[in-house]
Amino acid sequence: MGNNFGKIFRLTTFGESHGKAIGGIIDGCPSGIKIDIDFIQSQLDRRKPGQSKITTQRKESDKVEFLSGLFEGVSTGAPIGFIIKNEDAKSKDYSHIKDIFRPSHADFTYQKKYGLRDYRGGGRASARDTANWVVAGSLAQQILSGLGVSITAFVSSVGSVRFNKCYRSVNLSKIDENIVRCPDTETAIRMIKEVEKTKKEGDTIGGEITCIATGVPVGWGEPVFEKLHAEIGKAMLSINAVHGFKYGFEGYDISSTKGSVVNDVVAEQDGTTKTNFSGGILGGISNGNDIYCELAFKPVATIMQTQKSINTHGEEVEFTAKGRHDACVVPRAVPIVESMLALSLLDAYLKSKTNKI
Amino acid sequence: MGNNFGKIFRLTTFGESHGKAIGGIIDGCPSGIKIDIDFIQSQLDRRKPGQSKITTQRKESDKVEFLSGLFEGVSTGAPIGFIIKNEDAKSKDYSHIKDIFRPSHADFTYQKKYGLRDYRGGGRASARDTANWVVAGSLAQQILSGLGVSITAFVSSVGSVRFNKCYRSVNLSKIDENIVRCPDTETAIRMIKEVEKTKKEGDTIGGEITCIATGVPVGWGEPVFEKLHAEIGKAMLSINAVHGFKYGFEGYDISSTKGSVVNDVVAEQDGTTKTNFSGGILGGISNGNDIYCELAFKPVATIMQTQKSINTHGEEVEFTAKGRHDACVVPRAVPIVESMLALSLLDAYLKSKTNKI
Amino acid sequence: MGNNFGKIFRLTTFGESHGKAIGGIIDGCPSGIKIDIDFIQSQLDRRKPGQSKITTQRKESDKVEFLSGLFEGVSTGAPIGFIIKNEDAKSKDYSHIKDIFRPSHADFTYQKKYGLRDYRGGGRASARDTANWVVAGSLAQQILSGLGVSITAFVSSVGSVRFNKCYRSVNLSKIDENIVRCPDTETAIRMIKEVEKTKKEGDTIGGEITCIATGVPVGWGEPVFEKLHAEIGKAMLSINAVHGFKYGFEGYDISSTKGSVVNDVVAEQDGTTKTNFSGGILGGISNGNDIYCELAFKPVATIMQTQKSINTHGEEVEFTAKGRHDACVVPRAVPIVESMLALSLLDAYLKSKTNKI
Amino acid sequence: MGNNFGKIFRLTTFGESHGKAIGGIIDGCPSGIKIDIDFIQSQLDRRKPGQSKITTQRKESDKVEFLSGLFEGVSTGAPIGFIIKNEDAKSKDYSHIKDIFRPSHADFTYQKKYGLRDYRGGGRASARDTANWVVAGSLAQQILSGLGVSITAFVSSVGSVRFNKCYRSVNLSKIDENIVRCPDTETAIRMIKEVEKTKKEGDTIGGEITCIATGVPVGWGEPVFEKLHAEIGKAMLSINAVHGFKYGFEGYDISSTKGSVVNDVVAEQDGTTKTNFSGGILGGISNGNDIYCELAFKPVATIMQTQKSINTHGEEVEFTAKGRHDACVVPRAVPIVESMLALSLLDAYLKSKTNKI
Repeated sequence: MGNNFGKIFRLTTFGESHGKAIGGIIDGCPSGIKIDIDFIQSQLDRRKPGQSKITTQRKESDKVEFLSGLFEGVSTGAPIGFIIKNEDAKSKDYSHIKDIFRPSHADFTYQKKYGLRDYRGGGRASARDTANWVVAGSLAQQILSGLGVSITAFVSSVGSVRFNKCYRSVNLSKIDENIVRCPDTETAIRMIKEVEKTKKEGDTIGGEITCIATGVPVGWGEPVFEKLHAEIGKAMLSINAVHGFKYGFEGYDISSTKGSVVNDVVAEQDGTTKTNFSGGILGGISNGNDIYCELAFKPVATIMQTQKSINTHGEEVEFTAKGRHDACVVPRAVPIVESMLALSLLDAYLKSKTNKI
Repeated sequence: MGNNFGKIFRLTTFGESHGKAIGGIIDGCPSGIKIDIDFIQSQLDRRKPGQSKITTQRKESDKVEFLSGLFEGVSTGAPIGFIIKNEDAKSKDYSHIKDIFRPSHADFTYQKKYGLRDYRGGGRASARDTANWVVAGSLAQQILSGLGVSITAFVSSVGSVRFNKCYRSVNLSKIDENIVRCPDTETAIRMIKEVEKTKKEGDTIGGEITCIATGVPVGWGEPVFEKLHAEIGKAMLSINAVHGFKYGFEGYDISSTKGSVVNDVVAEQDGTTKTNFSGGILGGISNGNDIYCELAFKPVATIMQTQKSINTHGEEVEFTAKGRHDACVVPRAVPIVESMLALSLLDAYLKSKTNKI
Repeated sequence: MGNNFGKIFRLTTFGESHGKAIGGIIDGCPSGIKIDIDFIQSQLDRRKPGQSKITTQRKESDKVEFLSGLFEGVSTGAPIGFIIKNEDAKSKDYSHIKDIFRPSHADFTYQKKYGLRDYRGGGRASARDTANWVVAGSLAQQILSGLGVSITAFVSSVGSVRFNKCYRSVNLSKIDENIVRCPDTETAIRMIKEVEKTKKEGDTIGGEITCIATGVPVGWGEPVFEKLHAEIGKAMLSINAVHGFKYGFEGYDISSTKGSVVNDVVAEQDGTTKTNFSGGILGGISNGNDIYCELAFKPVATIMQTQKSINTHGEEVEFTAKGRHDACVVPRAVPIVESMLALSLLDAYLKSKTNKI
Repeated sequence: MGNNFGKIFRLTTFGESHGKAIGGIIDGCPSGIKIDIDFIQSQLDRRKPGQSKITTQRKESDKVEFLSGLFEGVSTGAPIGFIIKNEDAKSKDYSHIKDIFRPSHADFTYQKKYGLRDYRGGGRASARDTANWVVAGSLAQQILSGLGVSITAFVSSVGSVRFNKCYRSVNLSKIDENIVRCPDTETAIRMIKEVEKTKKEGDTIGGEITCIATGVPVGWGEPVFEKLHAEIGKAMLSINAVHGFKYGFEGYDISSTKGSVVNDVVAEQDGTTKTNFSGGILGGISNGNDIYCELAFKPVATIMQTQKSINTHGEEVEFTAKGRHDACVVPRAVPIVESMLALSLLDAYLKSKTNKI
């Protein structure tokens, strides 16, 4: 249970880290949309391992293959099935983790919940499934783009190195000019150093991503239990390692502010407000200003140091990770965050079409 | 759309701030549960206006009336319908806000989304609906209590006044000994002063609530898109004024920590870990430790100062709020937070019953 | 579980036959619709007991009371809550059926499923809940009417008395000119006699209802698992006592026909076909012709004769029904059938709004 | 939209008749179930084209390939992804139907609903998708089998040739001893002749299937809008060409029966009734007796005779089908019907696990 996202534009995924393939079905895609598969692949490439010196050196080509729902390059309204083959999955040896509950991994919870687990590379708990999300999310981004909505995420902190400027003061189109995906070159250099230092120590470190959508019209988001920010929050908290979510209040601490300071006055009939503490959402409904949110990622659980744990027999063991892992996950998470925002917004848009006759 | 919460234990609500009544339907309540209506009413009383000098002085008795689903005090498996009558609703005068888009309120977004709005007291956007949530949530709390799960929320900050101790170092059962619902008397006194000072200025202030569930067994929460913390996050972000959500990492900044410091080592076969940075959830599934989360509330939008805005005709206007409003919403939000955690957990429990044959 | 209907226009109901009140919440009603409450009440009146000599003589005024979602008579987009109070509920004596599993009633299945049951008048299993459906359904009918869709149901058989003409050869607006709701006066008279004869024998008898929707445009209904006829079929099979459903093939046996005879040739660009064996639906999607379906009702289980059964202790008992019951349920079921068709169609329409950008 | 079935045990499918592959995702499969893939393949083989002289002579090997959710042959609780490759799909020529709306096909409705259509072999409207249903349904059958539930469907009529015996008087395990899948040899021979005669005429003919489940315990099915028979009815009406559904009343006309004749008296504490007019379901909940239902299929729309229609430009055209098609679809539909009953029952079982704490 729990393997689908969205109510109208609805993604269902399958796949373990080391099975034959992962994949998904996108149901509810409107018909008549010309799909740019190159853009989808480019977002997958931003997510894939082995893309730079600061990510894991594992290699996966992550080529998406579409099986249905498109006819002559255009969506037909039928469900869009796709797969991404796993490569080299069989050759690996996982016997060293078969019986061990790795610290801060989901080994223990899966084992107890289901009575068994696919221990190869984390099985279903692996972040590998997020490649499926990027396929659907980047398709959603294209549809949103046609509606005038543009989505951008960037790395706003790595450990204690923070990007402290306002996002409107920098050129967000330059994010990919550095490998850490921070829009400020000087900060990016310090972030890269922080990752490299952490990696050398065999350790891992957390970070933050900021995500913005511009061009969202007034009226997306359903009140009460499907508020736009609550759906976005859920989407973001679904991403492996995300422990915190905040919307609006750019550069401010939410809870210590005063109403007289942070109330957003409507200035224009299109909803433009003089300030945007609300992060583009009021009462759970988009108000025409930029959607703004921040996510906090914990450090990756797999470290290259010897750790203690217990095994499936309850015995205390020592354990050292093998393989090549990310010291900091946020640079590769940028397209995932963009994808989850796109999925949330497109679903909200399609829902909003039913608000009036 | 969007007026229900939960998949198996499912609450649907209705009601505007100033209609005849608000109410809801709880579908999926297991049969055979003896319901303590007094406990439900006591949680409603903790939420209701007029309960202390630091809350709004409006009076609503908020008496819940059950209409179905209970037979001789026991749940029958049929849907539980209930209403809470609104009092004095008709007598008020809302002509002064009829045509104004109040700053940081949902007036503008509702008007544009639906083409009209019930302007009386915020209509459906009002936090009044949360009384319905408390009815269902406190019923859920009782069921969870029978499963050994205990839920407690408390105020951990008001403006810049923060409760900085570990929750295990204080007596959580003493939360209601002060009107601000902070478990530390000395901090509570400072918080109360902060609220009173803010109120005197005609201003409002934000705050934080911490919420804990003890006794949750291993295995609640569904992977990938119904992760336990994502469902809890969505539940909390549904609460009016909540702008931030964090789980785990008590007393720590998530993104600047290192894996070697925050990895939780499994220490016991029941899942007890040596530390609990994970906040009781790994891979989206409860791991047997305390569920721990924090919420940040923005200041209430209604302040007692003159503000600028535009009206429905696009003209700039000045506007001053009338009536009696909360200067800080967090003390009254405590039972709402407990209720939303209860709804999330009970739904996760019922789902988990289908994981095995 | 299971107390809601529809995906976008979504009805959730509560209430037992003899509780304080029954009621429901309509979520997803588009905003800006002027609601004619008199029409809703008139449909309730067509369903209510005591309306003619051939129905049960019980009296319920069945007055609907709206509690939310309407503002100055217009839908606001907020959920529409409503209740219908039960009258005289408390005064009745049900001790004679408390421990008995009445034949072909749901007493046994509820008792075993839930471990207890509200035995007063059938509790949740009673057809009383269909009054809630009529409230929502007749509201849906109004919205559909604004889209050019007209819905009519009529009694097409009572026992062995059948109305055998084509529905287009009679005046469907005259259905209420007789108490059995058959559009052919001569047949109606024979049907009424059949009901009266059955009633005199203390027995009950089955019947059939035909339901038609005209003006449905091409394109409503979602392929594969939300086919329009499958949704309608489910809606109709939800009605107490319905055991059979058929769409299209008016006056024909479905399974013994040949393709060369029953294939519908498209004759006009608006989808008009030369024949309408398809009942207005092809591939699960409306094709612009009249929607046509037939339902078969079993006889009411409560008969005025002594029957055998077992009691809750497994002992064989004899049992005689008390009270005033319907000898044939179909005349009162006509507005229920219309309502369920309206709910199905409106939901399909709202879904279809998301098929294209 | 609409490409999934089930609430807890949930199948989502994709695939057009002539794309690269069709497939699906089964979400909510309980963990720890040993899966017999040979049984799944054997049910696919009963459905596939080319299996006997009375079915279409097209050849598809219909080999299912599982991609996830199984580990060492056992379900892990993760979603089960699978595909079935389409063979020879590319080689065919569909230019003759590209612009024609075939009579009683979904060409017209898809074209109007979506603005375009994949015209190759019916695209998404093809019955090819039912192969996916058989994969999930036969997996569900295995799980049900472990719970003591056995499901059998058989052909009960082809055109005017009917099997008129009670299903308990024949040996249901012998259904596959003849190619038409009727449990009575003499009737089967006549049915086969009927199909062959129809085929020779270039025509098609309707038929009926009866479906039975034995061993279903009391308590499956949720009241009101998820009644067991309503869910089964919806499942069956999803099958291409099904126009009628009936449950219970074996050998009887529903609407002309009397309550005194068809009321089922409970005879045993396990729910066994003296008769089973109710078809094993009362109040929407299984009562411990055999589940019994009948489906009526219209004749296949593709006939080998010249037909009239209009093309996409609104011009009248003549049209003759090419290729190899079924003259009667019911023999191949038997495993599809069994699968849909299995999906409905397993989902009902899993839901029922949440009825009590």
